[in-house]
Amino acid sequence: MNFTDKLNEYIKLTEDNLKGYNSNTPQTEYFKVLIDAMNYSLEAGGKRIRPVLVYEFCKACGGKIEASYAPAAAIEMIHTFSLIHDDLPAMDNDDFRRGKPSCHKAFDEATAILAGDALSVLPFEIISDDSLLSAEKKVKIISHLAKCVGREGMIGGQVIDMENEKKSDVTEENLRLMYKGKTCALIEASCVMGCICAGADDEHIKYAAEFANKLGLAFQIIDDILDVIGTQEELGKPVGSDAEENKTTFVTLYGVDKAKEIAAEITAEALEILEKFDNNEFLVELTNMLLVRNN
Amino acid sequence: MNFTDKLNEYIKLTEDNLKGYNSNTPQTEYFKVLIDAMNYSLEAGGKRIRPVLVYEFCKACGGKIEASYAPAAAIEMIHTFSLIHDDLPAMDNDDFRRGKPSCHKAFDEATAILAGDALSVLPFEIISDDSLLSAEKKVKIISHLAKCVGREGMIGGQVIDMENEKKSDVTEENLRLMYKGKTCALIEASCVMGCICAGADDEHIKYAAEFANKLGLAFQIIDDILDVIGTQEELGKPVGSDAEENKTTFVTLYGVDKAKEIAAEITAEALEILEKFDNNEFLVELTNMLLVRNN
Repeated sequence: MNFTDKLNEYIKLTEDNLKGYNSNTPQTEYFKVLIDAMNYSLEAGGKRIRPVLVYEFCKACGGKIEASYAPAAAIEMIHTFSLIHDDLPAMDNDDFRRGKPSCHKAFDEATAILAGDALSVLPFEIISDDSLLSAEKKVKIISHLAKCVGREGMIGGQVIDMENEKKSDVTEENLRLMYKGKTCALIEASCVMGCICAGADDEHIKYAAEFANKLGLAFQIIDDILDVIGTQEELGKPVGSDAEENKTTFVTLYGVDKAKEIAAEITAEALEILEKFDNNEFLVELTNMLLVRNN
Repeated sequence: MNFTDKLNEYIKLTEDNLKGYNSNTPQTEYFKVLIDAMNYSLEAGGKRIRPVLVYEFCKACGGKIEASYAPAAAIEMIHTFSLIHDDLPAMDNDDFRRGKPSCHKAFDEATAILAGDALSVLPFEIISDDSLLSAEKKVKIISHLAKCVGREGMIGGQVIDMENEKKSDVTEENLRLMYKGKTCALIEASCVMGCICAGADDEHIKYAAEFANKLGLAFQIIDDILDVIGTQEELGKPVGSDAEENKTTFVTLYGVDKAKEIAAEITAEALEILEKFDNNEFLVELTNMLLVRNN
């Protein structure tokens, strides 16, 4: 099967599994609106990159893909929870997400807050209730996932982003830490969880985490570059928004050319780490797709 | 040691443990505001009833209290997360909580949303990282906790509460389901987690859950009654707020006298279940303290 077919198959698998895990059972009549709001945002599409990484790292480490279903659905739920809360008026105040009204617009603000909250907790329920993973694997997965989401992970990155809006002198150290939290943390959780599902050794778990952090950072730097040199048509969103908002990015710190160089370097390093996973063809193609792109 | 001394000792233990679990490490310089907001709300006091139930059910089932530290801190974090989000302008819009500015007033709305989010995830980190509990116990605890918090637990109860504000005809079934979610679910999680920490059998876990649901329901009905017959001085909050907001309560459904009867009946049933825990003296006193009260 070629790369695109396999990617589309993984996307379909993710969407089917998500539906199953948040199905609307008869007992839930009274809080139907909550399940509806959760499903509305879960079904809003997107690249489903995180679950795809969970599946493929599991397979690359010799595991059966079924063993990674629960963590794959879990990471997409966490990602969706973060998008719902990020879009809220008190946060980024975005009325649209992927061309559809954001959750608090399609429902209301209170429902969006609660749908996000429910999606922050459901992942731990489905992992702990999974029938294929051992208790030891579940605990290791939950510990890693919670750290990547929490204070020093995704949520910590959000806080740095918010705080930076008030600053005029954002350092590179600060920017890297923000990207590490906001973008890399969930990618790290995805790759690492895939390895744990397969019973990989600590060395491979470490490599997977390193790969994830390089993939995430390069992805963010390319985002910074595209915001300056991309076209609105290609990006599907206005260009130049970073400059307008006076945001510090790798481009404001180094200029476009040097930023491109840094991104290329990190991409090469990421691909090098994939040697430890027998240069898994799908992961190499996925990395190239994400890092050699114009939207 | 008498009841009050033991209760105060448990409260101090809870506050010390919470500090330890969310300590401000050097690495967290950039997101200090997040840790500060989390601690601000964690330190805001309250009766700490939920952790106390975790400790005592663990002991009542023959466990060592240390084995229950992580779940006890976890449940108080979840409770605090729910208070922070409940107080938000889009939810109950409360500027004060226990006489202090609520989190979004002391910090800002975005920080409060993120502090709540971080407190919804940290519980799963500290339980999975605990050094005393077995992997099997951790998974059982996490599964139960996540369900009690999620769609059909605390968050589901919140949703029913919000939806009921738009209704004029709230049924008793609906009201009971709301109380089960909003109040009973976290109390159930507390009692059940205590049992699991001690390695109690499924029968005792079932009894603990039944006790918790009776305790929570009676507590809520007494709240409904006090809102009508209590004095502002005793309650520390305005009386008659339910009637003003046209809320359906056990008092609007049955009148004060019948509601009192129902609460007394459920209290008696709760105390009867404690026989299965050798009429644990502390739990009997705690039940009486919570259910025979005027504030």
